[in-house]
Amino acid sequence: MVRRLTAVEIVCVGEELLDGSVVNTNAVYLGSRLHELGFRVRAVHTVGDRVEEIDETIRQSLSRVKVVIVTGGLGPTGDDLTREAVCSALGLSLQFRPQLWDSTRQLYCRRGGIPQEEDLRQARLPQGASPLPNSVGTAPGFWLRWQQKLLICLPGPPHELRTMWTEHAEKVLLSQLPGERPRPAPTMTLRVCGMGEAQVQHRISQISLTGVEVGIYSFPGEIQVRLTATQPGPRGQEQLARAEANLRAALGDHVFGVDEQTLPAALGARLVQRQLTLATAESVTGGRVADLIVSAPGASRYFLGGVVAYDQETKRCLLGVGPDLLERYGPVSPEVSEAMARGVARLLGADVSLALTGLAGPGREEDGRPVGTVYACLLGPWGTKLRERWYPGPRELVRQRAAMESLAWLYLTLQRLT
Amino acid sequence: MVRRLTAVEIVCVGEELLDGSVVNTNAVYLGSRLHELGFRVRAVHTVGDRVEEIDETIRQSLSRVKVVIVTGGLGPTGDDLTREAVCSALGLSLQFRPQLWDSTRQLYCRRGGIPQEEDLRQARLPQGASPLPNSVGTAPGFWLRWQQKLLICLPGPPHELRTMWTEHAEKVLLSQLPGERPRPAPTMTLRVCGMGEAQVQHRISQISLTGVEVGIYSFPGEIQVRLTATQPGPRGQEQLARAEANLRAALGDHVFGVDEQTLPAALGARLVQRQLTLATAESVTGGRVADLIVSAPGASRYFLGGVVAYDQETKRCLLGVGPDLLERYGPVSPEVSEAMARGVARLLGADVSLALTGLAGPGREEDGRPVGTVYACLLGPWGTKLRERWYPGPRELVRQRAAMESLAWLYLTLQRLT
Repeated sequence: MVRRLTAVEIVCVGEELLDGSVVNTNAVYLGSRLHELGFRVRAVHTVGDRVEEIDETIRQSLSRVKVVIVTGGLGPTGDDLTREAVCSALGLSLQFRPQLWDSTRQLYCRRGGIPQEEDLRQARLPQGASPLPNSVGTAPGFWLRWQQKLLICLPGPPHELRTMWTEHAEKVLLSQLPGERPRPAPTMTLRVCGMGEAQVQHRISQISLTGVEVGIYSFPGEIQVRLTATQPGPRGQEQLARAEANLRAALGDHVFGVDEQTLPAALGARLVQRQLTLATAESVTGGRVADLIVSAPGASRYFLGGVVAYDQETKRCLLGVGPDLLERYGPVSPEVSEAMARGVARLLGADVSLALTGLAGPGREEDGRPVGTVYACLLGPWGTKLRERWYPGPRELVRQRAAMESLAWLYLTLQRLT
Repeated sequence: MVRRLTAVEIVCVGEELLDGSVVNTNAVYLGSRLHELGFRVRAVHTVGDRVEEIDETIRQSLSRVKVVIVTGGLGPTGDDLTREAVCSALGLSLQFRPQLWDSTRQLYCRRGGIPQEEDLRQARLPQGASPLPNSVGTAPGFWLRWQQKLLICLPGPPHELRTMWTEHAEKVLLSQLPGERPRPAPTMTLRVCGMGEAQVQHRISQISLTGVEVGIYSFPGEIQVRLTATQPGPRGQEQLARAEANLRAALGDHVFGVDEQTLPAALGARLVQRQLTLATAESVTGGRVADLIVSAPGASRYFLGGVVAYDQETKRCLLGVGPDLLERYGPVSPEVSEAMARGVARLLGADVSLALTGLAGPGREEDGRPVGTVYACLLGPWGTKLRERWYPGPRELVRQRAAMESLAWLYLTLQRLT
């Protein structure tokens, strides 16, 4: 039996969300809250400050789903038009609410100011609407039932929206739709490294996964497989556990963690488990590998430190990379990556060392090696491992992918150490 | 005279954008680019991975505006359904394109992998569609004309979308709609460091800015002031130039650059100008400062390298931080930050050195210093400068702000060096 989730659409109002000025964080906040409560967000529509466009969007959303949540356009200024648009969409008129006006005046009084004529706009609500108090700003929200549907309007500033959501709007949603809400479906994210998206998909396509919906998402150096059970509660937990076991069998030790566990944290756990210390030597990635390692709390238990040897002289003096090597093979070469790894292991007395040298661009190839070429060396109980990679793309991306993939390489090497 | 802008709607496809997993940064990127080019984004619609919902949304958008841009759902996996939805919306069928398949195979060949059966999906496009090459991933985009309208489909991963936009899609948009586009209103972003948002706002409120719209946006370690002229062409350029001069007078040398110029690049330009070399020693930031410095192309001209001394032993052996200092003042202290700065300057023979030590959490205070405490030391021709900061927030934010603000500090110090 597949659960049918109650669908919600979100309408975000604000020209600043359309012209690239502001990232829409309200949509992701509401999406996350609604998902956890067991609703399905069917769509998010962002529109500008024009009554007819807001009106049309709200009407269309109400025709498709049971719950529509509107954000923004509730302030005091002339381009705050959500109240008018709701009236126009539902054929209602605006009513002055003396109580809201009193609250606004009291708020100004406490803050030591005088309400402006513009603030009067905020004391008008569509007829039949119930106000949602705003404890951190002046613009009240409101909600109303309309032909079996529920419409909730919230202010645009993120901290006002979040406060109003947790203090009032969520309760309205749950109490107005008591029968509608199924128990939330359990979810889980499996995090995978050392494999491409197509390869993950291919392996998943060869196993049978029932009782879960599967989404595959790609990030630099990592693939996430998100599972949502089709049933709520303990049955859903069982579905997830079965799917997880099947996926782990199919993806093997490429699964480094679940949910919030990051690759640096998983790597750290392996180092602690094997009682090994780590040091890094970086040229092309300029400290990013060390930075990623340190992003895991408790990294001081295994990470001794690293050297960023961006300059040839630093490679020579500090890491002891011979000038003959630099001359004969060039700074971007497997030979130099190995000498860097040896140098930093000796310098810091580390059990394991990771070194990277490469060409991130911009600019042209050097010594016949194209921009995007990265050599890495991994020294440890397994001996010496060398690797060449080519990453297309701009400087930032080359560096990010080289850093993330070298950590995945180290993780898998430790994982397979017998 | 009000310009009538050609309207565009954006359709973003991806369940992860609806359930609160991922912030929709593609919408803000495209919004900003389209705004600068002189188009008006009328709406952004985000929908999940369901053919019928993507289909319906694309059809409705095409009924309202001349240009529709779709993002996401172009990958190789079974939940990548944008190609199918476009065909369904426009009554087209999918065609296999041998050339696209060849490119995919070549990409795999260069990267040292084998294409999977799933990758075949990416070699199919709606009939009549022209491919948009993807130079940083496997999923091609495409565009097509349909009843006087223009439909452009781009991949979802932000770096692929951005690369494809700048390399191909923007040119298609401009060449397919030559008569449609009014001259864009000139825009400019002034980038400011070493000041908070309220301080920037306050200084701006005290000057008169006419002929421009002003937006102020806050990022870790940086404030951006975005100006849009109210008129197009040379008149707009004059408006911008006047506003820029007024703003520079009000904000002083805190303005480190305009538009795409980053703080690390501005810092590098100052070091080159003064013929100074730089080295870093990091504990709490774990290589992030070095990484930021290296993010500027050409950093090898002034950046000698750095030491990530996460372990006490590394601070002692490599940087020569005396055990008595560590014992007496603790590793998170101004004394240790100064010893680290001296150590790395000596080790690498640098003119300028920057060192940071601090407590990023999670966890409790140490030696009476709360989590979020960061000490920094700057050595150079100005002598020794020390600084203590406290950053509220989680580990990642503490580290990011400490790194960015230390670069701003170094930049302003160099700027004011007589």
